[in-house]
Amino acid sequence: MKKLLLIGIGPGDPRQITYEAVEALRRTTVFFVLDKGVDKDDLVRMRRAILERYLPEGGYRLVQVADPCRDGAATDYVEAVHDWHVHRAALYARLIEQELAGDEVGAFLLWGEPGLYDSTLRILDLVRARGVALALEVIPGISSIQALAARHQIPLNRIGEPLTVLPGRRLGEQPRIDNVLVMLDGQCVFADLDDPQLVIYWGAYLGTADELLVQGRLQEVKGQILAMREAARARKGWIMDTYLLRREL
Amino acid sequence: MKKLLLIGIGPGDPRQITYEAVEALRRTTVFFVLDKGVDKDDLVRMRRAILERYLPEGGYRLVQVADPCRDGAATDYVEAVHDWHVHRAALYARLIEQELAGDEVGAFLLWGEPGLYDSTLRILDLVRARGVALALEVIPGISSIQALAARHQIPLNRIGEPLTVLPGRRLGEQPRIDNVLVMLDGQCVFADLDDPQLVIYWGAYLGTADELLVQGRLQEVKGQILAMREAARARKGWIMDTYLLRREL
Ligand SMILES: C[S@@+](CC[C@H](N)C(=O)[O-])C[C@H]1O[C@@H](n2cnc3c(N)ncnc32)[C@H](O)[C@@H]1O
Ligand SMILES: C[S@@+](CC[C@H](N)C(=O)[O-])C[C@H]1O[C@@H](n2cnc3c(N)ncnc32)[C@H](O)[C@@H]1O
Repeated sequence: MKKLLLIGIGPGDPRQITYEAVEALRRTTVFFVLDKGVDKDDLVRMRRAILERYLPEGGYRLVQVADPCRDGAATDYVEAVHDWHVHRAALYARLIEQELAGDEVGAFLLWGEPGLYDSTLRILDLVRARGVALALEVIPGISSIQALAARHQIPLNRIGEPLTVLPGRRLGEQPRIDNVLVMLDGQCVFADLDDPQLVIYWGAYLGTADELLVQGRLQEVKGQILAMREAARARKGWIMDTYLLRREL
Repeated sequence: MKKLLLIGIGPGDPRQITYEAVEALRRTTVFFVLDKGVDKDDLVRMRRAILERYLPEGGYRLVQVADPCRDGAATDYVEAVHDWHVHRAALYARLIEQELAGDEVGAFLLWGEPGLYDSTLRILDLVRARGVALALEVIPGISSIQALAARHQIPLNRIGEPLTVLPGRRLGEQPRIDNVLVMLDGQCVFADLDDPQLVIYWGAYLGTADELLVQGRLQEVKGQILAMREAARARKGWIMDTYLLRREL
């Protein structure tokens, strides 16, 4: 059976990777790197930087492939994501077949924590469903939300209280925003909230040289965040940001 | 200002620690280790093992202290926790004053991720409120819930859906259990749930040689989990377990 490692590499700082993950890098013969287009070039470069840092002696192959783009026009979100997974599964199955010999170990370098808003595990389920036998190993990584909390020096949860993590598009549906971590919010849904009791802890490009941090009452700082976000995105061509919304008691 | 590092050391496997955390260990002069009583001796031993592995040359001091026990008899949970924090703050303030010289770096080794159900940051806020000036640095770590997902090879969230993390005592209040990660459940609240659609992914002593994993339909496996849990706890004198409950669609 072919072996595949799903390696969490942390949110951007090459030191925020575990010893277990680096051991996994050292066992890998073929790295699969999905290229999401020009503006995400930086992310591919950051993955390469990790390989050069921890595997200076080389000895691996890097297979870089264009990622089929998600259909932005589809009306049903879940259906669109599923279609995209099916396309990716076909691509991954072909890659695994063509690029990985039976005794070789393949790996995907996954941003942050592999279990958090990452579709690789689900796509590999579909690859298996196509009849490709795979032995998997998953190696956890530091998530961007952990980097966010560490940089702001705050706990993720309030004492004894639940915490919720969700993608931006689900924020509007929350009956009550109390302690919510938001990822994947390209629409800046936080800016539409007008609850005066909310406090925001925001971070972008966490763990990288471009890191940005803002914290404060949402109503007081949201304009500043929108402006910083827009300027940074214009300068770099892309942005990755995440935030915690907490209601002041 | 005295410098204190809050270092996330992962859930038990010494390889599940980051390079950033090990760099922080190397900068530390004094480690503060809180001793929670005989049955938790193993946890102190695991922290020592990490120090011996990554700082074989020594050169640091280890300050081990008895931890004031939380008042189990208090009727109000939040109040009891707060009282306990106040006691700990007094203890930490004294330790920092007595054991840490102005130019030395102190550190707490925190289990898993420092931002998740860990009170050290809040206690240090109280220490500062007592007038002790502190420069803090927080270093994220792999949480037990990430180890749980990695070992079961499952994503923490469903596609595009929220996920909730909560302590066992808050599970009963959940209006609808869909995708919930539970920590700190000494009462085995999962065993009281009778929803036939729930699936559980359970793990104990994750990352250690004693690791236990069970997954399946909650109603079919809950008896097995209770039995395994009880046997392990009797054998070792303590248990740490966590689980994900997910509703089958
Ligand atoms: C597809 S999700 C993957 C999350 C990743 N698995 C993790 O654990 O961080 C991408 C989202 O993660 C967040 N993110 C990832 N890296 C980040 C970083 N370095 N700084 C800020 N946010 C980041 C952003 O919210 C982004 O939209
Ligand atoms: C006080 S909380 C601290 C959590 C820690 N900060 C983390 O991120 O894992 C302790 C709870 O974490 C969970 N836990 C910690 N380590 C664990 C392990 N190795 N295996 C299973 N559960 C663990 C258990 O639910 C335990 O009751």
